[in-house]
Amino acid sequence: MNQSKQSIITSLNPTATIPLYRQIYDRVRDSIASGVLKPGDRIPSARALTKELGLARGTIDTAYSLLAAEGYIQARGQAGTVVTPDLKRLPAARPAPQQDVGLSTSFRPDSILPFQMGLPALDAFPRKIWARIGAQIVRAMQPADMVHPIVNGLPELRSRIAAYLQVSRGINCTASQIFVTSGYRHSIELICHALMKAGDRVWLESPGYPPTRQILEHMHIKPVSVPVDRDGMTVSEGIKLAPRARAAVVTPAHQSPLCLSLPLSRRLELLDWAARNEAWIIEDDYDGEYRYVSRPLPALKSLDRDGRVLYAGTFSKVLLPSLRLAYLVVPEAQVERFSAISETFTGGSPELTQAIVTAFMAEGHFARHIQRMRKLYGERREATAAGLEAILGKFMRIDSQPGGMHLILRLEGKQSDRDLVARMRNAGLYAEALSDWSMAQDPSSALLLNFTNIDSQRTAEALGKRILKVL
Amino acid sequence: MNQSKQSIITSLNPTATIPLYRQIYDRVRDSIASGVLKPGDRIPSARALTKELGLARGTIDTAYSLLAAEGYIQARGQAGTVVTPDLKRLPAARPAPQQDVGLSTSFRPDSILPFQMGLPALDAFPRKIWARIGAQIVRAMQPADMVHPIVNGLPELRSRIAAYLQVSRGINCTASQIFVTSGYRHSIELICHALMKAGDRVWLESPGYPPTRQILEHMHIKPVSVPVDRDGMTVSEGIKLAPRARAAVVTPAHQSPLCLSLPLSRRLELLDWAARNEAWIIEDDYDGEYRYVSRPLPALKSLDRDGRVLYAGTFSKVLLPSLRLAYLVVPEAQVERFSAISETFTGGSPELTQAIVTAFMAEGHFARHIQRMRKLYGERREATAAGLEAILGKFMRIDSQPGGMHLILRLEGKQSDRDLVARMRNAGLYAEALSDWSMAQDPSSALLLNFTNIDSQRTAEALGKRILKVL
Repeated sequence: MNQSKQSIITSLNPTATIPLYRQIYDRVRDSIASGVLKPGDRIPSARALTKELGLARGTIDTAYSLLAAEGYIQARGQAGTVVTPDLKRLPAARPAPQQDVGLSTSFRPDSILPFQMGLPALDAFPRKIWARIGAQIVRAMQPADMVHPIVNGLPELRSRIAAYLQVSRGINCTASQIFVTSGYRHSIELICHALMKAGDRVWLESPGYPPTRQILEHMHIKPVSVPVDRDGMTVSEGIKLAPRARAAVVTPAHQSPLCLSLPLSRRLELLDWAARNEAWIIEDDYDGEYRYVSRPLPALKSLDRDGRVLYAGTFSKVLLPSLRLAYLVVPEAQVERFSAISETFTGGSPELTQAIVTAFMAEGHFARHIQRMRKLYGERREATAAGLEAILGKFMRIDSQPGGMHLILRLEGKQSDRDLVARMRNAGLYAEALSDWSMAQDPSSALLLNFTNIDSQRTAEALGKRILKVL
Repeated sequence: MNQSKQSIITSLNPTATIPLYRQIYDRVRDSIASGVLKPGDRIPSARALTKELGLARGTIDTAYSLLAAEGYIQARGQAGTVVTPDLKRLPAARPAPQQDVGLSTSFRPDSILPFQMGLPALDAFPRKIWARIGAQIVRAMQPADMVHPIVNGLPELRSRIAAYLQVSRGINCTASQIFVTSGYRHSIELICHALMKAGDRVWLESPGYPPTRQILEHMHIKPVSVPVDRDGMTVSEGIKLAPRARAAVVTPAHQSPLCLSLPLSRRLELLDWAARNEAWIIEDDYDGEYRYVSRPLPALKSLDRDGRVLYAGTFSKVLLPSLRLAYLVVPEAQVERFSAISETFTGGSPELTQAIVTAFMAEGHFARHIQRMRKLYGERREATAAGLEAILGKFMRIDSQPGGMHLILRLEGKQSDRDLVARMRNAGLYAEALSDWSMAQDPSSALLLNFTNIDSQRTAEALGKRILKVL
C-alpha cells in the first residue's frame, strides 16, 4: 500500500495536459496491471489521499469513481477502499488511451452504500423468475419485436398497467390514457412539452424532490415553493402565493421526502382549485404502495372528476431502477395532445424491457412481489428504526410515518445535516440532508436514510455505531 | 365475410358516446370471440369499409390499427386483411372495458410492410447470438445492475463506442465525450437543451428528415431551410439565408433522404463557417457505414479541429430500432455542460439493453455484422433496383447513389408522389413521398423505398408489379 501511494504521488505531474484525476486513475490501474497492487489490497482512502497530495477532493473522487465504475476498486466504508478481490481479466479488453468516462455532476456512489436512497430491496428481488422470463423473451424475439416500438408503449403493457391501477390505486382509466416513459424525469418533461410554456408558474412542495425543480427551471417554468406542514402541501398557502399557477406537483401518498399523507380535505381543496382555474395537478405517486399502517390510500387521481390530474407512476421503486420504465396517466381529453408530443420527442422505450415487465405482470409475479415487499419493508422499517434508536436515540429523533422507503432522523441542537451527510459519505454511508430538499430560509435539519436494504436490527445497530463515530 | 361486414354496419351507432372507431373495433373483436370470424378469415379492407360505411378513412384505420396492434388481425397487402391465422388465446387475458390503446398521429403500419423505411435487414440479424448473449446477461444480473444506471451510459459501452468510432468513422474521442441516449430524437433534444434557446435559428437540409424540424419547432427554435443540390447541403446558400444561425444539422455521409455525400470542399466550408460564427454543426450519421461504391467516408466530425461538431450516431440502423439506443459525441469543452443537462433530464438507458450491446461489441459480433450487412445491402440494392427497373422503368427513373438503405424512384410526368404513396399503402406497400421531406415550393416527386428487406430481384419484380397496378 505504501508503495502504491508512493507511486501515485511521485508520478503526478500537475503541469501535464493530462488532467490530474486521469493521472491518478492511470497510476492505480497500472499498479494493478503490473501486480504492484493485488486483488484485495487496500489502497489509500480518498480522504487520506486528498490530504497527502494537497489536491481538491473532487479530483481524487473522480479518479476513484472511475476506477470503481470500471470494476478495479471497491469502497468498503470503514474497511477502506480495496482492489476488487475477485478481479480477474485485467485491463485486457479495455481499448487504450481514450479511456475516460464522464463525470456525473451530482453525487453517485461508486458502489451500493448502506441507506442509499431510492432503491428497493435488492436482495429480495425475484431474480430467478426475472431471469427465466427475460431469457425466454430474448430467445423468442420475432421481426415484429425488432422494429420501432410503438412510442406510447406496448399495448399489452398499457392494458396491464391500467388494470393494476384500477385494483391497486383506485384509478379508472383506459390503456389509451397511459404513456410509457423512461422514468419520472421523462414523464415530467412530456407534461411540460404538452401543457406548459415558458413563464408559467407551478406549485412545488417545500421540502420536495429536487429534480422536479431543476427540470422546470431549465424549461423556464417558474417554481412556486409551497410549504409542507404536518398534513402535506398547504393548499391554502399555494392559493395565496400563486392563485393562477398553471399546475401543482404533489406527492399525496407519502409526501416526498416527509412521508406524510395528504388528507382528503386537502385533496378536495386542491382538485377544486385546479378545476376552477383550469390548472393541472401532477400526482407523483412514486411509492404509494408502500404504506404499513393500513391499506394504501387510493390515488388522488381516483377523485379526479374534471380531468385535471396527471398521474406519474414508476417501476423504479416497485421493480428496479435500472429498468428505466415509468408511466403517465393523462386525462382522456389530453390523450391526443400527449400522443402528438410523444410522437415528436420520443422513440419509445426498448421492446425488451417492456416485454419482460409485461410477462412478469401477466404471470402474477408483479402483484405478489409488491405484497411481499410491503410486508418486508414494514419489518425492515421497524428493525432499522429500533436499531438506530438504540444507538443514536440521544442525538436524533426518528419521525413516525405511515409509509415510504426511508426514515427521517431529526438532528437535535444546531447540528448541520449537510455536514453530517458529507462525513457519513466519507465513511462509506449514504444519507441525504433534508436541507437540500427544502427551499425554506431556515430548513429543519434531518437525515434521510433508506431502510429497504437494511436486513435486521443488528445491521442497523452496527451502522448506527458507524454514524456515531462521525457525529 | 359478408356476415361480418353486415354485423359491423348494422351495429354502428353514430350518436352513441362510444367513438365510432371503438364501435368498429368492438364489433370485429366480438365477431372473432364469438366465432363468427375465424382465424384466417378475410375481413373487409379498410378502403372497402370506408366506402361502404361512408365514414372517414381515419376512423376505420384507427380501429384496424388497434386490432392489428393487439394481434387480432393482419394486413396482407393484396391478399387483404385477415383474422390472425394462428390466433389462439382469444380475448381471455385482456381486462375488460378500459381496453383502448392510444393512436399514433403519424402513420405506423400494422405489420412490417415491403419497402418500410428505416429498418435494417430483419432476416439477417444474428438472432441466435443475440439471444445467447441476452439470456446470459439477464441471468447474470447482480445488485450493481439493478440500481440507477449511470445517466451518460455504461462506461464500458462508451469505451467500446469510442474505439469503434476511431476505427470506423475516423473520429478521435474519449469515452467521456460519449453520451448514450435513447434515440436520435433524444440526442437532438439534449443538444437543444444544452446549446440553444428559443428564437435561435438552425439550418436544416431541404429535403431533410422531418422529425428534426418538428422537434426544433416545438422547442421554439427556428428552422432555416437550406436547399440541397447534387452535392448535398448548399453551404453558401445557408450563409446567405442565415449567416448568424446558431447551428446546422447535416447528414454528410448520405444526405437524408437523397443519399448524396457532402464533398470535402463543402465540409471545410461548413466547418469554417461554424468556427468563425461559433455555430454548432450537428452531424446526423444515421447510416454512414452503408456505402457500397467504396470504403465509407470518414465522418465530418473527424475534421473538427475547433470543437464545433456534435456527432449523432445510432444503433437503430446497424443493430435494431427496438433497442432504443443511440449516442452523441460532444466536443470536449462541452462535456460538463452535457453532463449537467443529462443529469437533469434523463435517467439513463436501461442497463440490460446497454449490457447486451456491450457484450455483442466485445465479442466482435458488432464489427462482423456491419461488414456482412454492407455486403448484403450492396447486393440487395442492386437486386431491388434491377427488379423495379424491369417492371417500372417506363414510369420511373432510379437515382444512382453511393450508399444508404433506400432507393429514390423519380416519377415521370406530373404524377403526385403523395397520391401514389397513399395508393401503395392501401395496397399493403410502404413508401414515403419525397415531397413530404421537402420545404421547397415545388418539390420533386419521388418515392423513397427501403431495400434492405427485399431478398431478391424476383421479389422486387413481384413488388414492382403490385406498384404497377396502383400507378
